[in-house]
Amino acid sequence: MRNFVFENPTKIVFGRGQIKKIGCETAKFGKKVLMVYGQGSVKKSGVYDQVIASLQESDIEIVEFPGVKSNPVLSHVLKGIDLARREGVDVVLAVGGGSVIDTAKTIAVGAKTDDDVWDYFMRAKTIQDALPILTVVTISASASEMNPAAVITKEEGARKFSFRSPFVQPKTSILDPTALFTLSPAYSAYSAVDAITHMLEGYFNNKEPHSPLQDRLVEGMIKTIMESTEVILRDPADYDARANMMWAATLAFNGLTAAGMGMTSLPAHMIEHSLSAIYDIAHGAGLSIVFPGWMFYAVEQDPVKFARLGREIFGIEENDNLKAGMEGINRIKEWFASIGSPVSLREADIPGEGIGKIAENAHVLAQAWGLRNYTEEVIVDILRLCK
Amino acid sequence: MRNFVFENPTKIVFGRGQIKKIGCETAKFGKKVLMVYGQGSVKKSGVYDQVIASLQESDIEIVEFPGVKSNPVLSHVLKGIDLARREGVDVVLAVGGGSVIDTAKTIAVGAKTDDDVWDYFMRAKTIQDALPILTVVTISASASEMNPAAVITKEEGARKFSFRSPFVQPKTSILDPTALFTLSPAYSAYSAVDAITHMLEGYFNNKEPHSPLQDRLVEGMIKTIMESTEVILRDPADYDARANMMWAATLAFNGLTAAGMGMTSLPAHMIEHSLSAIYDIAHGAGLSIVFPGWMFYAVEQDPVKFARLGREIFGIEENDNLKAGMEGINRIKEWFASIGSPVSLREADIPGEGIGKIAENAHVLAQAWGLRNYTEEVIVDILRLCK
Repeated sequence: MRNFVFENPTKIVFGRGQIKKIGCETAKFGKKVLMVYGQGSVKKSGVYDQVIASLQESDIEIVEFPGVKSNPVLSHVLKGIDLARREGVDVVLAVGGGSVIDTAKTIAVGAKTDDDVWDYFMRAKTIQDALPILTVVTISASASEMNPAAVITKEEGARKFSFRSPFVQPKTSILDPTALFTLSPAYSAYSAVDAITHMLEGYFNNKEPHSPLQDRLVEGMIKTIMESTEVILRDPADYDARANMMWAATLAFNGLTAAGMGMTSLPAHMIEHSLSAIYDIAHGAGLSIVFPGWMFYAVEQDPVKFARLGREIFGIEENDNLKAGMEGINRIKEWFASIGSPVSLREADIPGEGIGKIAENAHVLAQAWGLRNYTEEVIVDILRLCK
Repeated sequence: MRNFVFENPTKIVFGRGQIKKIGCETAKFGKKVLMVYGQGSVKKSGVYDQVIASLQESDIEIVEFPGVKSNPVLSHVLKGIDLARREGVDVVLAVGGGSVIDTAKTIAVGAKTDDDVWDYFMRAKTIQDALPILTVVTISASASEMNPAAVITKEEGARKFSFRSPFVQPKTSILDPTALFTLSPAYSAYSAVDAITHMLEGYFNNKEPHSPLQDRLVEGMIKTIMESTEVILRDPADYDARANMMWAATLAFNGLTAAGMGMTSLPAHMIEHSLSAIYDIAHGAGLSIVFPGWMFYAVEQDPVKFARLGREIFGIEENDNLKAGMEGINRIKEWFASIGSPVSLREADIPGEGIGKIAENAHVLAQAWGLRNYTEEVIVDILRLCK
């Protein structure tokens, strides 16, 4: 195990009927809230009404900032920052999934500085402060509700970049599995892909010295996410399946499985960021396209670990590591397809000619993330395995 | 999964060479520290010198409070409270294992109140404040370094009671696996027993609704603790084995595996508390005696879960659940014996006549913990299975 620091102070309030606590939790941090949400699904699901009622009951003044889209964009974030400053809000509340939470985080930072917030994404400056952030989760995938990261796309140049700062770690997140009952089958599937691939990129990083504990935590969570997602697709209102998926997805990327593994590089996520920055497809859909291709590219460098995955998750009995690893990758790809997530660029209507453009964009990110082995040529090779 | 609140703000600084950071971490909370430790093992291991040097480098004034024994007693805690008040310390630093940390927690509470601290253990009053607590861990077992609980024995009446309060959640804990290199084989074994049984009592509580995620986390941690302990007993200075054991033991009782399982009752821990309160044996040694007896008592009420444990941990192939469950219990008992932990009252020189006294004491605790099914007669029956 490598040295690490683990600190995750977010308070999780989990379970049926818990959204009514958001007013009380928010009141600990201020009297006036910027409520950030998406494009209306929270109104259809009833979550919006529950949140408003609870905030009003705690006498909190509400400023609404709706309209966050998936793959949230900087221009919209900047409007939110303006609004937060103009209204002098004390606290930012995200009601949604990763896109909404990441927008809220960036607004919380921007409201406390005169800096150009994009400098933080470019890692040109370090975040020094932020308004307190709370969340009510309506899509479980990103774990942004319990981590210090945010991803935003700057439309100019299609740059999908991220920052990390302890200042944006949410204070309190409410996870009520019933809020997911109306999540579409497509987004339920993308959520599973996102959570699984978050862990797998770290998993393949876990070697020399190998930490068996983290591998076991990851394998346990992947099994749980897979079986829960299969139930969810048959019965979207199965409480236990939604609950197991929801908590597993949060633990999947809150620092727990990565602690002790050293710096986790996320090359498949990097390539996907460029893909969805240019083609604006859902992050999970992009990942189910890119991740199998990346695994086919990476398997020969570490057949032992890929074989372990195939054996632990799918019970593959093949003795040859490379064959077992390849079979495992095929099984994951088949599973992504079985839950309705695309597994080729073709399925997402991304033309072969797009590969060069995605690779060029991804290479900028590879440099920012310090992934030196990922030259434009390597990225093109990986993307060709995703056709 | 049941509703839960999860909040664990302790900062963990993990790894080789990390003890030197304790000065810097302590300085965030004050300039004068009460340094609590045990009976000298920290001096032999070199941890004491590392801690003192780091505190001095950060210009922190040190008041030493040594002499904590395992099964720490109230009379000693009270001396620590007097000293902390008299010296006006800002912060309490525990350098040791669960006994030292629990002593430090109780001192931190007592230093901020005129109440009789025993009232908190009797649950007659609620803790309202405490000095900040930091820890440098030298025995990994209790997870007290990352949880809000403390256990202290009041000599009069041999009452081994506990409290929980967010005020005593450690601010920062330093976990350096090299600090465990000199831990004796006996205490290395007891640590494993303690950590495993913490999780197993929760595990058997996890039903209706069953949460597969938590079971998998527990199973992964138990496997890791077992294989690490076997390596440790062969080579006490195996860094990776100590590291895997250390982090698994902390995660075993920091709230993670219990989240979503509902109120976790710990009947075997309850009986052991009385056993070690009266006979003053190491907590882990007491647990390896009591826990198998409790499992033999409990297996018929939940053969499915006991069978799952036997199959997952030991690969037992028996199809009949009760038989598989019984075989699993025998295998755990054999494993405890194989690492050198006692598995019968006889081995610990506790006479058969002692059973009545232990049961009487445990019944008081059963009432305090709300374990209504555990009458004196039931506890006697369980203890008879431990002879």
